[in-house]
Amino acid sequence: MCLLVVGCCLAQYQPNWESLDSRPLPDWYDDAKIGIFIHWGVFSVPSVGYGPYGNTGEWFWQYWKGFKNKNYVDFMNNNYPPGFTYADFAPLFKAELFDPDEWAELLQASGARYVVLTSKHAEGFTNWQSEVAWNWNSVDTGPHRDLVADLAAAVRGKTDVHFGLYHCLYEWFHPYYVQDKKNNFTTNDFPKTKAMPELYEIVKAYKPDLIFSDGDWEAPDTYWNSTNFLAWLYNESPVKDYVVVNDRWGMNCSCTHGGYYDCKDRYNPGSLQKHKWENAMTIDRESWGYRRNAALADYLSIEEILATLAMTVSTGGNMLMNVGPSADGRINPIFEERLRQMGQWLGVNGEAIYKTKPWVHQNDTRTPGIWYTTSKASPVVYVFFQTWPDQGELYLGAPATTQSTTVSLIGYPGNFTWDATNPTGINIYFPAIPYNKMPCLWGWIIKLENLAN
Amino acid sequence: MCLLVVGCCLAQYQPNWESLDSRPLPDWYDDAKIGIFIHWGVFSVPSVGYGPYGNTGEWFWQYWKGFKNKNYVDFMNNNYPPGFTYADFAPLFKAELFDPDEWAELLQASGARYVVLTSKHAEGFTNWQSEVAWNWNSVDTGPHRDLVADLAAAVRGKTDVHFGLYHCLYEWFHPYYVQDKKNNFTTNDFPKTKAMPELYEIVKAYKPDLIFSDGDWEAPDTYWNSTNFLAWLYNESPVKDYVVVNDRWGMNCSCTHGGYYDCKDRYNPGSLQKHKWENAMTIDRESWGYRRNAALADYLSIEEILATLAMTVSTGGNMLMNVGPSADGRINPIFEERLRQMGQWLGVNGEAIYKTKPWVHQNDTRTPGIWYTTSKASPVVYVFFQTWPDQGELYLGAPATTQSTTVSLIGYPGNFTWDATNPTGINIYFPAIPYNKMPCLWGWIIKLENLAN
Amino acid sequence: MCLLVVGCCLAQYQPNWESLDSRPLPDWYDDAKIGIFIHWGVFSVPSVGYGPYGNTGEWFWQYWKGFKNKNYVDFMNNNYPPGFTYADFAPLFKAELFDPDEWAELLQASGARYVVLTSKHAEGFTNWQSEVAWNWNSVDTGPHRDLVADLAAAVRGKTDVHFGLYHCLYEWFHPYYVQDKKNNFTTNDFPKTKAMPELYEIVKAYKPDLIFSDGDWEAPDTYWNSTNFLAWLYNESPVKDYVVVNDRWGMNCSCTHGGYYDCKDRYNPGSLQKHKWENAMTIDRESWGYRRNAALADYLSIEEILATLAMTVSTGGNMLMNVGPSADGRINPIFEERLRQMGQWLGVNGEAIYKTKPWVHQNDTRTPGIWYTTSKASPVVYVFFQTWPDQGELYLGAPATTQSTTVSLIGYPGNFTWDATNPTGINIYFPAIPYNKMPCLWGWIIKLENLAN
Amino acid sequence: MCLLVVGCCLAQYQPNWESLDSRPLPDWYDDAKIGIFIHWGVFSVPSVGYGPYGNTGEWFWQYWKGFKNKNYVDFMNNNYPPGFTYADFAPLFKAELFDPDEWAELLQASGARYVVLTSKHAEGFTNWQSEVAWNWNSVDTGPHRDLVADLAAAVRGKTDVHFGLYHCLYEWFHPYYVQDKKNNFTTNDFPKTKAMPELYEIVKAYKPDLIFSDGDWEAPDTYWNSTNFLAWLYNESPVKDYVVVNDRWGMNCSCTHGGYYDCKDRYNPGSLQKHKWENAMTIDRESWGYRRNAALADYLSIEEILATLAMTVSTGGNMLMNVGPSADGRINPIFEERLRQMGQWLGVNGEAIYKTKPWVHQNDTRTPGIWYTTSKASPVVYVFFQTWPDQGELYLGAPATTQSTTVSLIGYPGNFTWDATNPTGINIYFPAIPYNKMPCLWGWIIKLENLAN
Repeated sequence: MCLLVVGCCLAQYQPNWESLDSRPLPDWYDDAKIGIFIHWGVFSVPSVGYGPYGNTGEWFWQYWKGFKNKNYVDFMNNNYPPGFTYADFAPLFKAELFDPDEWAELLQASGARYVVLTSKHAEGFTNWQSEVAWNWNSVDTGPHRDLVADLAAAVRGKTDVHFGLYHCLYEWFHPYYVQDKKNNFTTNDFPKTKAMPELYEIVKAYKPDLIFSDGDWEAPDTYWNSTNFLAWLYNESPVKDYVVVNDRWGMNCSCTHGGYYDCKDRYNPGSLQKHKWENAMTIDRESWGYRRNAALADYLSIEEILATLAMTVSTGGNMLMNVGPSADGRINPIFEERLRQMGQWLGVNGEAIYKTKPWVHQNDTRTPGIWYTTSKASPVVYVFFQTWPDQGELYLGAPATTQSTTVSLIGYPGNFTWDATNPTGINIYFPAIPYNKMPCLWGWIIKLENLAN
Repeated sequence: MCLLVVGCCLAQYQPNWESLDSRPLPDWYDDAKIGIFIHWGVFSVPSVGYGPYGNTGEWFWQYWKGFKNKNYVDFMNNNYPPGFTYADFAPLFKAELFDPDEWAELLQASGARYVVLTSKHAEGFTNWQSEVAWNWNSVDTGPHRDLVADLAAAVRGKTDVHFGLYHCLYEWFHPYYVQDKKNNFTTNDFPKTKAMPELYEIVKAYKPDLIFSDGDWEAPDTYWNSTNFLAWLYNESPVKDYVVVNDRWGMNCSCTHGGYYDCKDRYNPGSLQKHKWENAMTIDRESWGYRRNAALADYLSIEEILATLAMTVSTGGNMLMNVGPSADGRINPIFEERLRQMGQWLGVNGEAIYKTKPWVHQNDTRTPGIWYTTSKASPVVYVFFQTWPDQGELYLGAPATTQSTTVSLIGYPGNFTWDATNPTGINIYFPAIPYNKMPCLWGWIIKLENLAN
Repeated sequence: MCLLVVGCCLAQYQPNWESLDSRPLPDWYDDAKIGIFIHWGVFSVPSVGYGPYGNTGEWFWQYWKGFKNKNYVDFMNNNYPPGFTYADFAPLFKAELFDPDEWAELLQASGARYVVLTSKHAEGFTNWQSEVAWNWNSVDTGPHRDLVADLAAAVRGKTDVHFGLYHCLYEWFHPYYVQDKKNNFTTNDFPKTKAMPELYEIVKAYKPDLIFSDGDWEAPDTYWNSTNFLAWLYNESPVKDYVVVNDRWGMNCSCTHGGYYDCKDRYNPGSLQKHKWENAMTIDRESWGYRRNAALADYLSIEEILATLAMTVSTGGNMLMNVGPSADGRINPIFEERLRQMGQWLGVNGEAIYKTKPWVHQNDTRTPGIWYTTSKASPVVYVFFQTWPDQGELYLGAPATTQSTTVSLIGYPGNFTWDATNPTGINIYFPAIPYNKMPCLWGWIIKLENLAN
Repeated sequence: MCLLVVGCCLAQYQPNWESLDSRPLPDWYDDAKIGIFIHWGVFSVPSVGYGPYGNTGEWFWQYWKGFKNKNYVDFMNNNYPPGFTYADFAPLFKAELFDPDEWAELLQASGARYVVLTSKHAEGFTNWQSEVAWNWNSVDTGPHRDLVADLAAAVRGKTDVHFGLYHCLYEWFHPYYVQDKKNNFTTNDFPKTKAMPELYEIVKAYKPDLIFSDGDWEAPDTYWNSTNFLAWLYNESPVKDYVVVNDRWGMNCSCTHGGYYDCKDRYNPGSLQKHKWENAMTIDRESWGYRRNAALADYLSIEEILATLAMTVSTGGNMLMNVGPSADGRINPIFEERLRQMGQWLGVNGEAIYKTKPWVHQNDTRTPGIWYTTSKASPVVYVFFQTWPDQGELYLGAPATTQSTTVSLIGYPGNFTWDATNPTGINIYFPAIPYNKMPCLWGWIIKLENLAN
């Protein structure tokens, strides 16, 4: 016990990257593999976006007033009185139909193991009653409730999903940030009085399991004073033992320092990464915030989602999949459908995803669309595919078989026959499975046991 | 020419049911089989509904102020200032994202052959600038546009979908209707000054191919003066040669007089009807108007929709499937998905639906879930099923085979083998179709040719 | 009893002008002399007006949409979203601070003996829940209360002020009126279904002592069917014994038929009229409806008001002085001040106004600004003047004195000395009245007794 | 010259009261005598107040949410949806009819020599785009314009009225202030990040001639760090040479330190003060912010205003008279009337007010309602009275006459006769001035020249 105490104190992290980067990532994160991202804020009020830029909903303010994009300017001119400002949207963010228990149930049903809610986006509006965002937060105006607290309580009360928070460091139009930026970040009034106090507030109040930092890229970590925050977070905060963070803590940090890596927008390298990483992506291809003008074709199909999931997990990533609730607090049925479809698929195939790790091969060398994972607990190899073999025969170039190798389809009884191919590889022979015997749709997992590799 | 004129004049319809009922239903309607119903109005503004009553969205006013249903009263108390009235919703019905061309494209893609838009529901708000609904119509307030005209132009310009209009005779809270009702319908100020003038207006202005009348059931047709309207419609109106109407023209008419029969709410008798009928149903089980608080489970799945379609067509009905656009003019992606799924399925299997008629048997005598149709043009019989045969063998009790009988699956090459059974019936042997060869999902059509019956 | 019944029936008025014009004006009206006019409606919401036209507030809709006056168009463009309609103003007419008892107290304090409230102006919005203005009335939307009923109850409960109603026959934008007008008033759908039913409704429900009809001038009385209404009003209505009406019942009626004459806008002939008439005028020179953009200079001073009152009463008229409440139900303090000033003045000088009649001379032949009245009950003559005699000597050309003539100033003790002048006329010598002895300000009344004429 | 420079540098003020208090008050202020106070902010939106507390309008938030006063709570419950917050009022503060040139013209016409606009009240909403009130200021929301800048430009461009700003140090509900207060003001996050930055901003941006500080009383000046600000203001700021401030810089300062004294709310001691002071008062007795529910009786009459003015100036004060504009930017005509009446009166009697100083006597020892001033430039004594002498004879106990003493009434030609009384005092004999010769109404000035004192 004495040793442990000493260990604890010696083990404390220093506010520099060398020390901070030495902290091991808490295990729960890599085991979880799938999180749900929720973008919700004042941008959910106009809730239109005009592409193709990928961030068209939640960046409404910037497209309208910063970039002066014609589509946004026209939308405002056509629908609001002259002089209407972005701040005027806030009272219309009402969340009157928000039921956090329903959200929690859906998160659980999706098979995701963590959720990340925007506590504050670049608009600066905080979804809790921050001391440093007076009258520009969800309690003082708009919903008139603490959205962060309400969702945290529901998620913790109803599910075993980890609760995480997104926080955007910069704010496009905050006068202090604008000023600091003009000063080439030689002043730092903004992080001192706004960004950093917020981070301390949310950690203390909501004890998040994960912090997804963002909006860091215009200024170095020394401007933000990120290392001090992280040292406190790792050493003293109430979440020091299990909190997970990402890497967006300054223009010099992303993909280099911090916790897991979100190297860039929709980062999905397609090959094995040495450092744990995350693929943050969104079901509405064009937006993270809700868009009323999104059509069905803008939403990823479940097949596309599963392809992304397989590719991500196979290469060492987690997938953080985004939905954008509406200003009234609803998750659109099309989002709900995708989430429930994913949960349904994972109900059958979860063993190929959760608590797995990348295999020696990530995708197949010979047959496209094949992604591999392997269990952390045993040498079983999982093969993801979405193209049902045309002639009942699937060739995989990567696996090296042994005599005791067995091949099966998750959810389907019995083993498949197979032939070893030369030099490595395997031909798998599918039985004629009638439609009513299919274990699932949209993608399947072949399970290989007793391989040589 | 002289004879034709005489023919014309002798053929004119009289304002009584015997004469009106003698008019043959224009062919296009029975050939069409599938229509899309669109419920849109001021009720799309609150757009919540609390079940389980099946009409929870578009009857908002009635549940709130008529029935004083607690859920509705609470919703209003929690979200609006004291004294807020239903009329106060109208300016919030903005349709600012309404793109009639997008709707038209979707209608076409759904495979439906007609569309029926609520020109006016029981709230009395007209979606065109009616002379008899001053300041309570979509041009004078709310959207500030003629929604009927805009959709009609798009549908006619972009598709071959027939354009129809729903019109509700009664209005829950119109003072004249309320008064006439108090007088046991011995006065008829309401139909004279409101309901009937509207019908003449929409026929003259929008030349609908179909009129779906509703709200007739509290008073006899003599109160409404329906027969005079229909005589005019059939004899003199600009749509006299092709217009189709239903049967809701008075409490004594439904299922007895008029055009096709919509005998009651969600009429779906399940057995062959002598008179052409329609199954008006809605994808959101609980509502015809849009409900923001509907969850995914409230929406019919595509499998449920196809089951309903098959049952309906097999028994001589048309299916009129409802979607509820939102107040801003969007058709939710979940509705869009259902419509496109239906269109995709009909792209494969349309021959079993369009221009068919009921067969001698409607559903199978022995195997549940089987529904039959037959082509109007040839003796081919279509067999709808949704349960893929467990052992690859499907038994049908109704068909009587001949030696030249052939069996095939629409969308799949070649014929299936079969055995005749005794006394009638057929055993069909399915080949082992791998998943990638399936012609479609959700339901399939077996095509029987050269049967004995 | 039998005789009474016969008498009653013989006395009935026929629906023609000869008969209707034979009805004597109930006495209360001529005795009252002063009424307060109240213009209140949806126009009280925008409540701006741009002159100089005299009707700039309550004609907002017409200036904006009819005349397309640039000031109004700009106001809307600058302050409302595109497409905003006049009907969209209705929910903003909230009357949330309306206290009818306060209004009643103020009416009493003003010295007025009747009040005339706009039951409906040319916008068509009824300030009661009319059966023929569904959803375009003050109960169904906006204030959500029966403004006519509420004011009637307060006035009757708290004061001895007579309660009257203004009613505008035509409506600028009612589709039926627009249509009838296009048809050169050969059709009369509008009066039949809208204007006339309203008049019957308000008489039955609110039993007004006075009806101020308006908006008649584009069509003849036969279009409006005014004579039938008046015959019913005089013969059968609950107010038949005391109701007073004006003369605006058709383009051929004004200044010719009906009750008292409101010959034209702000009619004030300046000379004695044979027929009882009324000077309807407004404290805000530019508007009858409230204008937020009115400046102090736009309001008549109390001196101007008293000058108008004297001129009006001297020539046989009543003065109907208008105030425009705001949409929230307040009578601006500047209006309140004018009303209380008038009441204060009448508290001293009322005997020169109420129950008087024109004298043989109306204004003085020699000294400008002098107006005469005489008591109905006695031969006393009242002389109104506003210019305090420069040298303490006031010359009047009209009065013919006798030896017993006495001259006094109302509110000041004792008699003034005077000299007869030749051929008629009188020189009145004012004592040096110190400021603290003045009976009132703004205008004074010399009382002449025992004159020769 | 060299000495002067040295003098300047030595004369710099230190951040302590002894030093700061040594700065002489710039002359313009004492010469001006009359200022207009303008309370305008988000509180102008609800603009109701329920007495009798004297601050019922602009303290709306505090009465509602702080004191939970039933009248305010009821007003909100009756007129707004549940959950509506004070912040939600901001977008309704539109100032759409605000014309700063009109205001400037009116200020000039009132005779006032300075104006003081609320730059920020205790609600924290800044009427300019403060860097430390992001999205809670008049540019980011509400009026969408810089109200301070707009009024400053108009006042400076159109008038010779001095431009001053009111600034409230504390904010009832700012989280930092609330926190500092809980900490017994041992922390000072609020002044450091909010209150003080604002003061520097407004001085630099708008160069006010006067700063009326307020809201200081809960914490000592050391908490606010007032002395540092004042030292900067007096030494370095762009207004150092002419700026005037009051005394509300901390709970220990009022009536003791700073510039002129506003010792307490509506301070009006009634006797000569050693230190220059100000009587800040408001025309609406019950409120500084606009109240829609104020009745005429709530507004001071011009007679009451002049009585206050005389008493104030006679005892060494300035009068700062308040008007409350409405949320749409209008100064109600009743306020306009009072201001123009005051200007009209000063047009006659200004010499008795401007550039005067208290006389040896302030009010008369014997006759009530008499107030004295004397010219700074000459020994003339001015006597204010409002009660016209009953018998034409006015007795004043204070003046000691000489043989050459003359007595006149300002605005009236010639001198009055008088008698000396014993031991001091004077009997003044008024001529019989007819009404049309009165120099003004509401109050008059007797001018005494060549007195003994």
